Amino acid sequence: MPDEPRVVFTPSGRRGPVVSGTTVLDAARGLGVDLDSVCGGRGICGRCQVVPVAGDFPKHGLVSAIDHLSATGATEEQYRSKKGLATDRRLGCMAAIRGDVVVDVPPESQVHRQVVRKRVEVEDLVIDPVIRLYYVTVTAPTLERAAGDVQRLLAALRDEWRLELDVAAAAVAELQSALGAAGGAVTAAVRDGDEVVAVWPGYWERALGVAVDVGSTTIAAHLVDLASGTALASAGRMNPQIRFGEDLMSRVSHVMLHPEGADQLTSTVRGAIDELIGELVDEAGVDRGDILELTVVGNPVMHHFLLGYDTRPLGEAPFAPATDAALDLRAAELDLAVHPAARVYVLPLIAGHVGADTAAAILSEAPHHADEVSLVVDVGTNAEIVLGDRRGLVAASSPTGPAFEGAQISSGQRAAPGAIERVRIDRGTLEPRFRVIGVDAWSDEEAFGDTPATGICGSGIIEAVAELFLCGLLDADGKFAADAPDRTDRMVADGRTHSYRLTESVLITQNDVRAIQLAKAALYAGVRLLMDHLDIDTVEQIRLAGAFGSHIDPTYAMVLGLVPDCDLSKVSAAGNAAGAGALIALLSGDARRDIERVVRSITKIETAVEPRFQEHFVEAMAFPHRSAEFPNLAAAIDLPARQQPAGVRRRRRSREASS
Amino acid sequence: MPDEPRVVFTPSGRRGPVVSGTTVLDAARGLGVDLDSVCGGRGICGRCQVVPVAGDFPKHGLVSAIDHLSATGATEEQYRSKKGLATDRRLGCMAAIRGDVVVDVPPESQVHRQVVRKRVEVEDLVIDPVIRLYYVTVTAPTLERAAGDVQRLLAALRDEWRLELDVAAAAVAELQSALGAAGGAVTAAVRDGDEVVAVWPGYWERALGVAVDVGSTTIAAHLVDLASGTALASAGRMNPQIRFGEDLMSRVSHVMLHPEGADQLTSTVRGAIDELIGELVDEAGVDRGDILELTVVGNPVMHHFLLGYDTRPLGEAPFAPATDAALDLRAAELDLAVHPAARVYVLPLIAGHVGADTAAAILSEAPHHADEVSLVVDVGTNAEIVLGDRRGLVAASSPTGPAFEGAQISSGQRAAPGAIERVRIDRGTLEPRFRVIGVDAWSDEEAFGDTPATGICGSGIIEAVAELFLCGLLDADGKFAADAPDRTDRMVADGRTHSYRLTESVLITQNDVRAIQLAKAALYAGVRLLMDHLDIDTVEQIRLAGAFGSHIDPTYAMVLGLVPDCDLSKVSAAGNAAGAGALIALLSGDARRDIERVVRSITKIETAVEPRFQEHFVEAMAFPHRSAEFPNLAAAIDLPARQQPAGVRRRRRSREASS
Repeated sequence: MPDEPRVVFTPSGRRGPVVSGTTVLDAARGLGVDLDSVCGGRGICGRCQVVPVAGDFPKHGLVSAIDHLSATGATEEQYRSKKGLATDRRLGCMAAIRGDVVVDVPPESQVHRQVVRKRVEVEDLVIDPVIRLYYVTVTAPTLERAAGDVQRLLAALRDEWRLELDVAAAAVAELQSALGAAGGAVTAAVRDGDEVVAVWPGYWERALGVAVDVGSTTIAAHLVDLASGTALASAGRMNPQIRFGEDLMSRVSHVMLHPEGADQLTSTVRGAIDELIGELVDEAGVDRGDILELTVVGNPVMHHFLLGYDTRPLGEAPFAPATDAALDLRAAELDLAVHPAARVYVLPLIAGHVGADTAAAILSEAPHHADEVSLVVDVGTNAEIVLGDRRGLVAASSPTGPAFEGAQISSGQRAAPGAIERVRIDRGTLEPRFRVIGVDAWSDEEAFGDTPATGICGSGIIEAVAELFLCGLLDADGKFAADAPDRTDRMVADGRTHSYRLTESVLITQNDVRAIQLAKAALYAGVRLLMDHLDIDTVEQIRLAGAFGSHIDPTYAMVLGLVPDCDLSKVSAAGNAAGAGALIALLSGDARRDIERVVRSITKIETAVEPRFQEHFVEAMAFPHRSAEFPNLAAAIDLPARQQPAGVRRRRRSREASS
Repeated sequence: MPDEPRVVFTPSGRRGPVVSGTTVLDAARGLGVDLDSVCGGRGICGRCQVVPVAGDFPKHGLVSAIDHLSATGATEEQYRSKKGLATDRRLGCMAAIRGDVVVDVPPESQVHRQVVRKRVEVEDLVIDPVIRLYYVTVTAPTLERAAGDVQRLLAALRDEWRLELDVAAAAVAELQSALGAAGGAVTAAVRDGDEVVAVWPGYWERALGVAVDVGSTTIAAHLVDLASGTALASAGRMNPQIRFGEDLMSRVSHVMLHPEGADQLTSTVRGAIDELIGELVDEAGVDRGDILELTVVGNPVMHHFLLGYDTRPLGEAPFAPATDAALDLRAAELDLAVHPAARVYVLPLIAGHVGADTAAAILSEAPHHADEVSLVVDVGTNAEIVLGDRRGLVAASSPTGPAFEGAQISSGQRAAPGAIERVRIDRGTLEPRFRVIGVDAWSDEEAFGDTPATGICGSGIIEAVAELFLCGLLDADGKFAADAPDRTDRMVADGRTHSYRLTESVLITQNDVRAIQLAKAALYAGVRLLMDHLDIDTVEQIRLAGAFGSHIDPTYAMVLGLVPDCDLSKVSAAGNAAGAGALIALLSGDARRDIERVVRSITKIETAVEPRFQEHFVEAMAFPHRSAEFPNLAAAIDLPARQQPAGVRRRRRSREASS
């Protein structure tokens, strides 16, 4: 065998000659190959697993053989028997290179491994761990040289890992006790490559994080292993602030009326998060003290309540937030009982009413990394809207009001068991059938039995109105057709107008239709405004985020004109994009820098000061207001002839061209 | 007048031409002259006061006239009438330069002004404020540009002051409320030139700091104005930890026996500091929230208790501290109710038993800036010793035990009212006279009356033993002379030996003398060890720090051989050098960097591992052990012939030279 065997690492392709006997781990470090290690080459952590590949590699001019690595020794054998090691794998820190060899680094052995995004057309996310663990041996103090524990730990990290660090004040007492218990061998958790935030005696491999999505209705939290990204537990609960007001603005109003009550809203949401953390650690069987890092997302009002900021400025123009930058706080500042040195990363706000939840949705959906123009919509009391592609994003909030959440609807209710969530109306008989949350069967199926419907939720009312329109009972302007009562006895007199009787107790009233029209016109007008700003007429992809986005049928969203025309196969639910973004930010420092940079670059549109918003809003009241704007919808849905709109709206560009 | 008048600033000597009409403040900034301003040139703060000087300045080639500055305008007149302005002074921001002029910047108008140290031979200290105030006008948010309050404040500080800053998370809520109250005009407190830590509505000029000296017996705190350095209030109290143990080691022993009680010792000392802060703000009539910065000094054990670190390693070899670096904490981490963003700077430890109090004493005494070799001694349960000059310092702790504090003495007590603190014995009659703390008269004066003496404190026992030696009742080895009982009936039988009857109830026993001998030998041996390390035979100055140092008479300290021989005029009390150092660190960032650098450079000597320490210790048991080593003492004190030592100890250097 040659004196200077050559090694080639895949998939990086990095290669070079090494001194015979160099371990694979040392070779990887020397060549800048991303190969993980916590124990620093002691055969303890197993993070540096590699797969030697035998074969002829003419491209590299070498013949690789598995036995060009040193034979498995006692330490590696012990690891294999105790913790398990696939037969084709070696510990990189134990396998010495004796001859030419090709070594593959599997994804889980890379610190900066790629995570495949849900959206296949967007480039993968590279994990850049915020917390990394390092096993070190700290020299014992002597009478001659009794340097401080902190100073000896930092010296060990410098010597063994070439790291120049500080130690968080809150981690010092833990360091003392770890050194006392372990006689010098400790594992240090390093945050952001610059600060030791936790120390455990001996070898330790658990550093946990929690991603928190603070919604106005529900708070969800996920516990994950920060090294692997593995989810360990999830928990959610109603936001207990609901007792101060059902929706955001009523909570802000509560503070306006009772300024002294603001602290209570803050402590309520902090307490709820702390209790969720308790549920998570119980479920996973871990300690609160193992949690070193948290991320939080939420809309601007929840963000301000959580941070103890005054929410009142968010309730009135010009809606200036206290701060819109990302924040890096101590968990103790939010009264969260986790590791004493744990930190909380709060994603940036985009504007006074486009929140950190939308920033998180951007991180998850990554429209800024896509070539095609995407529309990301999260509907709540306000609809937060982001539009754009890798060339730039614009964002706005549209005042949809709470109709899409079932509020302001005569029989409306939250999306909860008993609520009608799907509606179909037979085009001939004009008889309805529907589904109720919590029951799999449709109302005309035997299995449905006599399930009572307690009300109708957001997706149900949208489908009901859309179906009423599609079967001709509603005209394009949203009025019940004059002949509707003659066509079906489902139309019942209701004051000076009529209502459609969906069930004995659930009516769809003219006012309900108006409320939906107002909400959807606001949403659509907001989207159009952003399209104006990007000077585009179509969007190539629509992602409906959040609970509402998951419940709503994209076809009906388009029938009603909530969103602009789009290939229906490109309209889809994004799920909990905000929660997914919180998780990404928890796992990757690069992702944090990415979203901070993107948020700074986003053009924020304030609908209230854009004259064109009102114009779009008025035009958008009808459904589907102009068929020429909805070619995809017209192709997909058999609109009744009488509903075909009469004229074709002039396009903005042609208007501008002629002006 | 010339188009480009010339301005000369004194005392800096900076000079240059300026465009006619330039204000003195702007000219100073352009020329890099240190001229303070909080309001940024609005004629509000009065910090930029200057004194124009008329006359012929041939050195600068110009003739200066007071009317070469613009006349006093309305704003300046208003300031003069409301806040007062000496007749020869002008506001630098209002006085425009119209012709050649010499302008003097008085010390109080300089940000980095010099403070004269108590030790005249050491260079002055330049104040480098840790907290500076900046008055700014923050633009109101608009619907078109509703940037966050934080972002708009930072933009204003960038535009008006060219500062690139962050805002502390804990100051954001305050910023919101200040902007709400003041419509944009606020004063921001900036720490260390990089972070806004407090915001007040409108113009504000109060930023306060507290320097805390945590002793094992007493805790003292001083409230100062951070801009001017003016002391506003002082307060002190017993350290309530005393109920867990009189001295440091008994408190550490308490924790060794009751590890679960450590938190209690921590909360006790934190609570005491917090209560002292309450007394300070009450006395000064200010708010806790005005306190933005604190400094803390203390010995290693108090340091560890305060910070919540384990003190047990400090109680046993090798005495490794948790950390010996300076710390920069949030006040909230120490449970101190001050401004929410207030920080606490903890001075560095020098070693496991040479504390932050000694570091502070170095900062105050500045031996590292002196040309002559200084010895700084702080006597407590341990004596902390620093020796050296600008070429370098060495430090050690000597295990003196608590005898100097009155413990281990048969009639010993703390230095408190009723304790004998001064003792004289007539060389002829051998009758004593003494003084008692709390009474001005000596015991043989009429005014003394029948004041009872409850015991004897450290300085009293030292003087008693020294006087017994000087009048020949004690021999140089510390034994009562064989003929002592024959010479005076003050000598009373006490078991197999005798005691000297100072009062009816206060005896000086042979064991008391032994205890003092052991303590003083330990101290002296420590000093000798440091002298060995610096390879010197004499010290040029001795500073006795702390309460003991203030009480003890330097002559008696030298008679007993506590400290090496020195010109008696160069032996003096340093007062509360630790507290003074805490104050300096509170007022000056430069001082913090200075002490951190010096502490890192100090050579730490561990007496326990130095064989020569025992050698010095044994040699130092006698008093004054070798007259050749005490030429100054021999000249000053009339030692009785029988006490003149017989031999002259060979000097270390000659011994080394001959070996």
